[in-house]
Amino acid sequence: MAIRFADRMLREDFQGEFMKLIMEAVASDDIISFAGGLPNPLSFPVEDIRRATDKVLAEHGVQALQYSAVEGYKPLREFIAGRYRAQGIEASADQILITTGSQQALDIIAAVMLNEGDAIILEKPSYLAALQLFHFYGPKVLSVDLTEEGADCEQLAQLIEEHHPKFFYAIPNFQNPTGLTYSEKVRHKLAGLINASNTLFVEDNPYGDLRFSGSPKTPCKKLMGDQCVLLGTFSKTVSPGMRLGWICCSDPQLYQKLLDYKQVVDLHSNFFCQMVLAQYFADYRVEDHIARITQLYSHQANFMMDCMKKYFPAGVEYTRPEGGMFLWVTLPEGMRAVELSRRAVKRGVAVAAGDPFYEEERGVRTFRMNYTNCADEDIRKGIRMLGEVISQMQAESAASKTEA
Amino acid sequence: MAIRFADRMLREDFQGEFMKLIMEAVASDDIISFAGGLPNPLSFPVEDIRRATDKVLAEHGVQALQYSAVEGYKPLREFIAGRYRAQGIEASADQILITTGSQQALDIIAAVMLNEGDAIILEKPSYLAALQLFHFYGPKVLSVDLTEEGADCEQLAQLIEEHHPKFFYAIPNFQNPTGLTYSEKVRHKLAGLINASNTLFVEDNPYGDLRFSGSPKTPCKKLMGDQCVLLGTFSKTVSPGMRLGWICCSDPQLYQKLLDYKQVVDLHSNFFCQMVLAQYFADYRVEDHIARITQLYSHQANFMMDCMKKYFPAGVEYTRPEGGMFLWVTLPEGMRAVELSRRAVKRGVAVAAGDPFYEEERGVRTFRMNYTNCADEDIRKGIRMLGEVISQMQAESAASKTEA
Repeated sequence: MAIRFADRMLREDFQGEFMKLIMEAVASDDIISFAGGLPNPLSFPVEDIRRATDKVLAEHGVQALQYSAVEGYKPLREFIAGRYRAQGIEASADQILITTGSQQALDIIAAVMLNEGDAIILEKPSYLAALQLFHFYGPKVLSVDLTEEGADCEQLAQLIEEHHPKFFYAIPNFQNPTGLTYSEKVRHKLAGLINASNTLFVEDNPYGDLRFSGSPKTPCKKLMGDQCVLLGTFSKTVSPGMRLGWICCSDPQLYQKLLDYKQVVDLHSNFFCQMVLAQYFADYRVEDHIARITQLYSHQANFMMDCMKKYFPAGVEYTRPEGGMFLWVTLPEGMRAVELSRRAVKRGVAVAAGDPFYEEERGVRTFRMNYTNCADEDIRKGIRMLGEVISQMQAESAASKTEA
Repeated sequence: MAIRFADRMLREDFQGEFMKLIMEAVASDDIISFAGGLPNPLSFPVEDIRRATDKVLAEHGVQALQYSAVEGYKPLREFIAGRYRAQGIEASADQILITTGSQQALDIIAAVMLNEGDAIILEKPSYLAALQLFHFYGPKVLSVDLTEEGADCEQLAQLIEEHHPKFFYAIPNFQNPTGLTYSEKVRHKLAGLINASNTLFVEDNPYGDLRFSGSPKTPCKKLMGDQCVLLGTFSKTVSPGMRLGWICCSDPQLYQKLLDYKQVVDLHSNFFCQMVLAQYFADYRVEDHIARITQLYSHQANFMMDCMKKYFPAGVEYTRPEGGMFLWVTLPEGMRAVELSRRAVKRGVAVAAGDPFYEEERGVRTFRMNYTNCADEDIRKGIRMLGEVISQMQAESAASKTEA
């Protein structure tokens, strides 16, 4: 039988094809990989989770293993809301919906809001797997440039005016892939724009807790109120393997639709692990744990930037993240990141070429570097090798220009 | 801002409205509920899971908490494939995709296969949450009658011939809601029909392990090969709270699409719990555990049927399940299950009126009874009360006929 697939599975999946190439490279043991986005294993509080788990099963075993509420475990939702309140966001447990990682949050929001052809706006570049996910819903994807300060608000104003997009999806803190953070000025401008429109702001904040320098910025949710849904995750601070994230949504009508959709697609997220996390947060100071992670990532990010300064030829530029897991490199004009990536992987170093992070641009000269999951020695070795490959590409380019 | 929802969220949701009524009734502490579908807490091996969990975190803590493979933990997939092979189904670990409960398996299959307007076939009646889920994709839902022997194959042949449905979704063992099981004869007929068509068979088997009388039937997957995807779950035998199910798919092209979709919507299912289950299955004999569950459910089912025999007036019929969690009651002609349900809940007993289990029929005289989650005394008390309400409705109906 020839299986008849849905159209959504037959669209060209540029991002997916690219992902497979990255995964293949990364799966090899001989490769130093800056291409992925894994948290450092040191960031998993294994022993504390072990004790919390034992307590949950000893004291509430039947409840942990039974079906439960769609929206999630109330004490966990209260913990999340409490942390938001400490940041000045008015939030309560009944505005929190637990999801299977924040990736599922994207799917739920897209499913609840998008008809085929609806306009949405993303940052340029944006999170690769968000692009992939939204593509399933066949929207018109618009992009807004990302500057050192955040989204270009003039472009954004024009796009909103012309296209009335259903939502603008952005990662204002330590963005994936660029590592950039929106300034206070841009946040306030953005809030003005959004609140005067009928466009929802989807604020994805997976890395917000991982700040290692500079000062915390005002959450967009705080400035936008109901017109913003805020996504979070435990993947970068406790465990990605548990697949637990959430949506904070203060518009009751939208919250109800998100809940309705969630109920039908998987009833609820893993309840046992929700109870384990709530127990862990009750018994241990997660802020101390997060401080250990950011201290490590600060070191790794700075070490990587030092190595880049030392080993990259002049003309290569890169962002200086104040937190998160990534930085973003721009090669000199005329060079392609895909070519660098192809050559580097042959020499044992993987990077994530920028192309799949864009909706349209191809053959770009940008690429993403992850610094959280490598030992210093590998960072030094990998960056030195990348520097050599870039220099070689530059020399070839200069030679071919001379010839021409 | 007025949120602009997707059309899929604005369709009339008869099933969902009904579910909310049921949930409200069930949430009350004073109500004896036969309306839900919760496994008995005795079916959760809490202490064994506790030991398995501790072992996983002690020995492989970092792996358990890290991101992992989309398809799921290999030893768990091998365990599932091994159990299939013991039933005569040729299966290997690379044909198993772990999902967030088998509910998510339905969503993944629907997403991968359905365009709006595509025909699909379901049993009449069918699983309420499958109807709800498929509705999101806007298909043309066709229904085939369910007899004591299984799906009506003549109707099915005609529907396939006329509509070329993308798939036929069915629950051949201890069906939800009816408790009915397909005979060997129907299974073979069905396989002949399916294999001569380009319709996929989606065999949902959440209750197959819970057989307490009669003899096991040949899995449809065994008779249909690649033209059948088989769904399973750990929710009824170990823990629903962990939300772990799977798809067994031997068509490599279809498997790849299911995997692609799963990766984009939530990366992978809870990995920690996948490792816990694999450890539990390695260290304990799950067949012994399942035997304890079926012994309990056998008692509960028989006790409920005995009570029905004793307390229900003549003319009320019900199925005699050989396993699973439900039986299906048919009231005498002219009576409506919704009216019974409304009156019964006022007297403290909840049942699931049949209406939402049908795509089209309304005002039906069938309703679903769950027997797994009630003590004997509550079963007796609840059935007696239902019998009284039915008798009263019969008397009123007779009186109004006399008057007329």
